[in-house]
Order: sequence, then structure tokens, then C-alpha cells
Amino acid sequence: MDRYQSFARSGVGRFVVRKLGLPDPHPLRRHSPDRPPLDGPVLLGGGGRLVAPVGAVLRSIGLDVVRGGHHAPGAERYGALVFDATAIDGVERLRELYEFFHPVIRSLGPCGRVVVLGTPPGSAASPVAQRALEGFTRSVGKELKRGGTAQLVHVAEGAEGSTESTLRFLLSGRSAYVSGQVIRIGTDPVAAPGDWSRPLAGKVALVTGAARGIGAAIADVLGRDGAHVVCLDVPARGEELSAVANRVAGSALQLDVTAADAPARLVDHLRQRHGGVDVVVHNAGITRDRTLGRMDEGRWDAVVAVNLAAQERLNEALLDSGALRANGRVVGVSSIAGIAGNVGQTNYATTKAGVIGMVDALSARFAGTGTTVNAVAPGFIETGMTAAVPLVVREVGRRLNSLAQGGLPVDVAEAIAWLAHPASGGVNGNVVRVCGQSLMGA
Amino acid sequence: MDRYQSFARSGVGRFVVRKLGLPDPHPLRRHSPDRPPLDGPVLLGGGGRLVAPVGAVLRSIGLDVVRGGHHAPGAERYGALVFDATAIDGVERLRELYEFFHPVIRSLGPCGRVVVLGTPPGSAASPVAQRALEGFTRSVGKELKRGGTAQLVHVAEGAEGSTESTLRFLLSGRSAYVSGQVIRIGTDPVAAPGDWSRPLAGKVALVTGAARGIGAAIADVLGRDGAHVVCLDVPARGEELSAVANRVAGSALQLDVTAADAPARLVDHLRQRHGGVDVVVHNAGITRDRTLGRMDEGRWDAVVAVNLAAQERLNEALLDSGALRANGRVVGVSSIAGIAGNVGQTNYATTKAGVIGMVDALSARFAGTGTTVNAVAPGFIETGMTAAVPLVVREVGRRLNSLAQGGLPVDVAEAIAWLAHPASGGVNGNVVRVCGQSLMGA
Repeated sequence: MDRYQSFARSGVGRFVVRKLGLPDPHPLRRHSPDRPPLDGPVLLGGGGRLVAPVGAVLRSIGLDVVRGGHHAPGAERYGALVFDATAIDGVERLRELYEFFHPVIRSLGPCGRVVVLGTPPGSAASPVAQRALEGFTRSVGKELKRGGTAQLVHVAEGAEGSTESTLRFLLSGRSAYVSGQVIRIGTDPVAAPGDWSRPLAGKVALVTGAARGIGAAIADVLGRDGAHVVCLDVPARGEELSAVANRVAGSALQLDVTAADAPARLVDHLRQRHGGVDVVVHNAGITRDRTLGRMDEGRWDAVVAVNLAAQERLNEALLDSGALRANGRVVGVSSIAGIAGNVGQTNYATTKAGVIGMVDALSARFAGTGTTVNAVAPGFIETGMTAAVPLVVREVGRRLNSLAQGGLPVDVAEAIAWLAHPASGGVNGNVVRVCGQSLMGA
Repeated sequence: MDRYQSFARSGVGRFVVRKLGLPDPHPLRRHSPDRPPLDGPVLLGGGGRLVAPVGAVLRSIGLDVVRGGHHAPGAERYGALVFDATAIDGVERLRELYEFFHPVIRSLGPCGRVVVLGTPPGSAASPVAQRALEGFTRSVGKELKRGGTAQLVHVAEGAEGSTESTLRFLLSGRSAYVSGQVIRIGTDPVAAPGDWSRPLAGKVALVTGAARGIGAAIADVLGRDGAHVVCLDVPARGEELSAVANRVAGSALQLDVTAADAPARLVDHLRQRHGGVDVVVHNAGITRDRTLGRMDEGRWDAVVAVNLAAQERLNEALLDSGALRANGRVVGVSSIAGIAGNVGQTNYATTKAGVIGMVDALSARFAGTGTTVNAVAPGFIETGMTAAVPLVVREVGRRLNSLAQGGLPVDVAEAIAWLAHPASGGVNGNVVRVCGQSLMGA
């Protein structure tokens, strides 16, 4: 909890927050192996092609599933409300959304989950009604209090059996700081892991910029999930890097990704030491902020070189050489600035929008092969970097989202682990924000 | 000017605003037939396939075009900076953006315009670099002060001759409240109007919800552009409606769009009185705000009926009957709430997201025919409705955008007139926000 959160949870703070209508950040429930994924049963409603397979998945992972749509309000504290909207084949049937959620939305417990399941509008009987779900879900996300989140998941026809990894992510503390997102699951092949608690067992994962902050958290989570993590960072951070690599029982690779020979050296390292790589997380990134008129060319060049050009060259080398093995996972790190633009960050936003272009282009190229390319786009994440931001700017940045707080590095890492999951083969070409449903967007 | 704006322009106000870092809304330059479109020359840079045709268009419409990219900073006050980025075929060439804009961005005059011209990423030599332009342009929009705006225009290969109506819109006061947008121009057929000052001469335009507010402004602007405007609204607003119809020398049609016979009556009216219709603007819309748990079913049903179901039925009737003539223009009115969601507006946001679905589906259906389907998505627009919002909420809503002020109904109307233009045939399937680059988004 940050200091404002501690204040807002205190006796006096609670009173002041309520009287003045101040932001009221609820402590987020995060993943712990010792607790059930949700604090209450899942109410499953709607009547489309997903009710049966999704119900089966939820039961198989040990969730208590209540089937219904007209439950007495307040009778129970639900952990999640899941609605299959794929049967909504006309605008008039949007009323079924209202009929399901209206009586029960106030019975959703703290850190509760809302998931609306739909059909990709382009292939739906009513593209209008299916597209409309997005406005509904994003509004629900903004209305939820006490740490609740809401997402829309578009499941393509034929992908009904590919939802498990996504449901496990969304219906748990792993998605604590993800809200207001639209996720697409397609028919690309998926593989169930041998052990869902170590889905990356036997896999090799590369994480760039792994010495600290978000990169270190990514290494931790991928290591926890069973991967051998190759932790990469610049030689100047060699000590921190070794500490992270030791912690995750992985290996450290000191390399400047912008060096001319970096792609060749990386490919050699991965092939010779590990026989290849399964998961590539392009986390390395820098900022060099100035408004455009005051930005020297060094700032422009450095940011483009590290955040975009290097990533492109590494991808080309990994893909062309075959170092990325079958059913590979490439995950980029974009940013809200890459989506919405930001003052003082023409250079950074250019590169982070470019990461989205890379996802679009590479995911299309690998469609159907089993390899996926996705990105996360973090919002305000509590790191050493944000701790250095002046108080007022920091407080505004932290509160301007539906959860009224900053996220933690682990929240970004959990989203990446979901995308890296062998069962997430249907999740290809997505850019998922990890931003607590930030107000900011495009 | 609103009261805060007047204060911020006063002697004391200027000082207070600067000292406290308060929003500093610059009076926007809007279209007037008596003034040139821009207050200064256009600096045209870049070296792609658009420089020559765009330069020719700009000169033909009387703008003073300066060719260059390394102009001495401060030497001149430019009215606009236009950069052809279509030649950027790799990430390393993004530097050309920096090289063009860095030295001259501070020489852009008040209410200046930045337009970056690109290639749709999906068909570009470097999808990554072309997609990156979006982060750059949106950041520039946020950095510009004094009423400046920035847009990215994706011009498809083969559409080089279809930019004129869009450039006339963007490089003038007509786009005063449009910023941070990505506009796509495709190869659909365009028609040059006989008289660019009355592009809709001889055309019939239908405007729903025309009795007041934004609808009345749309009627005014389409009438100014030469259309015979059929002003439609509910019978209860008959008097206001007649006043608008008389003002624009159009005709009034009292009709409840949700009535079962409304589509048939409308088609009959348009065919019998006018032989058909060329431009259809679905502006009629209502709000019935409540959070979802407190929303009675009447509020849900009314909003869906007026904002979405009626529009869908009218479209079907107009399109199936052939009442919409060749080279027709259908323009919907979405909303930021339909993009980002909004507290208390699950019903409204559902319908406004549905409008985007309608644009996607119908624009695909009519692709290549000459008929286009687009929408505008207004942000905070000063109307009777927003004047009734409590002061603090209103002030926040007004300032949370790059121009730090609300827009006027005429700003929405000008965007619609651009989409309705016969030369805008290449602009199909776009949803363009009229929001001053609101911070809010998805």
C-alpha cells in the first residue's frame, strides 16, 4: 500500500475520503499459491456456445460455479460474474446483459471479477450488438468499486476449447491490475501444460532488461512458472543481473542489445547453451524525455535504438535462425504513452507505438503456426523510476484509473506469464493494457 | 469563451495561470468565409509519394506552401507543418520525423496545424515504422500549445488524388476541436464538387434530432454547404424544429424514430418529396444515467431504442429501399463514452459502442461503391446539456483535453460536413473524435 492508501484505510481517512469524494483505492488481491483464486462463487449467465465449455473449465479448476441470471440481489457475495453474450444476435437482445448484471452487480465481492464473453464482431450475426459489448464492459469497469475489474473476451468460433489459460488469469489475483480490456482468443493451436502450477517447465525464456524493476519481476514470475530464465541486461548492471539470475535459478547474459553483433551473439548463446528459446520478452527500454523542440538528437536516437530498432533486429535474428522454437512466444512491452501519446515523450511514444506495429505485423505472419506475438502496455507501475517523480504528478498519475492506485511490477509480469503460457496459443496479436483501466487513452 | 477562458486571458489571470501551471485554453480559430484558412504558410516536408500531389492541392486552394525541412527556427510563423512520412520504410528512418519537426515545431503559430501523412501499416514496407507515427503524432498533439492540433492521415496506395477534402478540413478552422486523430483515406471513388464553397448543392441531407444543440448546428452547416436539409425530430419539439428548418431553408419532419412505422414513413417522405436522400446524419440520442445496479429497465430500454435500435432500422430501410442515392453518406454520432466507457452510462456507452460496430459493418459492406459510412465521436461539447452539469465536474470535463476547453456544436457539425462531402469518398469506415484530444480513451 502506498501512503495515501494507508491513510484512506485508516479511521479518519475513511471518513475524509467519503466526505470529500476522494479516490478510494482498495487493496488488491494478488495471486498466492496458498489461497483460492477467488473469494466466492462464480455466477455464470447467458446462453451461448460458451456456457457449457466455460462452465466445465471453471469447475475443473476448482471454482464454485452457480448457474443463473436472476439471483436475488445481495443473497451472496460473488467472486465473479461471467456472462456468455455470444448468443446476442441483435441489438434488442442486448437487454440480456442488463437482465443478468443489474440484479447482481452489487453482490460482487471485493476484488470481484466481471467477464463478458463475446464473438469477434467481424464474424458475428450482429456485428453491431457484439461491438456494443465493449462500451458496456468498459463502463462496468469504471463503476466497480473495491478493486473489481471487468473485461470483454472475444472468443472466435472454433476456439471454445482455448479459454482456460485466459480464464485462469482473469478469474484470479493474477489480473489484479488489468481492467477494461478487450481480449481476442482465436483458433490458433494451444497445448495444455503437464502441470498447471509450472506451465513453463522445460521451457527457456529470455527477458531483456532483467536486472531491475519490471524486468526482474518478469524473471521472477517466469521462473516461478518453471522456465529456465535467461536474464539479459547491459554489462553495467552485471551485479544486479547476477543476483536476479541466481534468485530465479536462471542464467545471466550481459549484452548491450543495441550493439551491432548483439543479435548474432544472442542467437549463438541461446542455441549453444539452451538449444533455442521458447519465450522472448522484450522488456528493455529507456526514456529520455524532452518536448520535441528541446529534444537533442541524442535523446531521439538512444530511445529509438534501445526500444525499437534493437527489438526488431533481435526478433529477425531469433525468427530467421530458428532459435525461437515451435510454439514460441514473443511478448513486447508497449506503454500507455504508445497508445495515447504523452507530453515530453515524442521519442518514447514513437517506439512504444512501433511495438504495437510489431505485434500486428508478426502476429499476422505467424498466425496458425502455434507461435504467438503479443504485447502488454503498462500504465502507472510503482518502480524506482516512478518513485522519483514529483509528488503531485505522481499522485495524479497513480489515481487516474478505475482502481485509483498504481500497479506493481508483478502485475505486468503476471500478464506476460499468461501470454507466455503454452495454453495461450489462441491469444495472438493482442495488446493488453496493465493499467487499472487508466482514464488515459486514444 | 467560457468564464475561465476569459479569466485566463485577462492580465491577472495570465499571471495566475502561468504561476500555478493551470490550463491555458487559447481561443480557437474557427472557419469564416472572410478569412484565409490558415494564419501563415504551410511548411511541407518529407519525401514520399504524397509530397507532389499534396503540394499541388495546397497551392490550388490558395495556401502559401514552403518546401523544406531544415528551416531556421523562429524565422517564420507557420500556419501548418505537413510531413509526408510515406517514404519511411524502416525504423531507422523515423529520424526524418525528428529532423523535420524538431527545428520548426516552435515556429508554429497560434492554432497551427500539424499533419503527418503515412501509409496504412498493414500494407507498408515497414508496418512497424508506419505504426510508430501514431505515437509521435499523438504526443505532438499533447505538446502543442495555443490551440494547435496534430493528426495522422493514412493514405492508401492509389488514393494520392483523394486527399483534398480532408486537407481542406484539417488545414483550416473547420477542424478547430479535432486533434490527436488517425484518419484513413482509401481508394473508394471521390467526386469533386462543382463549387467548393457549396459542395452539397443539389443534395438532400437528413439530420435526426435537429431541433436543438448539436443537431441544429449540423443542419446549419450542411445548409451552408448547399444541401436541402430535412430536419427531423420528435413532435414535442415541433416549434424549435420548424425554426431550424426555416433558418436553413430546409424542411421539417416530425417523427419519433422509435415508432414501428418510422422507417417506412421516413422512406416514403424522402422518396416522394425529394426523390431520395444523399446524406444521412444519425444525431438523435438521449441519456438516462444511473449506475447499473440502480438503473431501472426503462432507462436501459429507452436509450437502446433511440440511440441504436432506431438507427439500425432506419439504415436498413434507407439502404434496402434504395432511398439512399448513389455516393451516399451515412454519418453516425458515437461518443467518447462509447470508446472509453463511463460511470453511470452502461446503457449509453453500449449504444455508442454499437454505433462504431455499425460503421465497421456497413462501411465494409459498401466498400468500393462510392457510398461511405463513418461516425464522429464528440467529447465535451458546450450545449444546454453540459451547461446543466455541476460546476466542478463541468470544469474537469472541459479541461481534460489538449486544448483545455470544451468544443462547440459547430465543431461536430464541421466534422460531419467533411465526412458528408462528395470529395470524401475515400474516407470510409472512420470514427473521428471531436474532443480536443481528450485525455480519456481506451
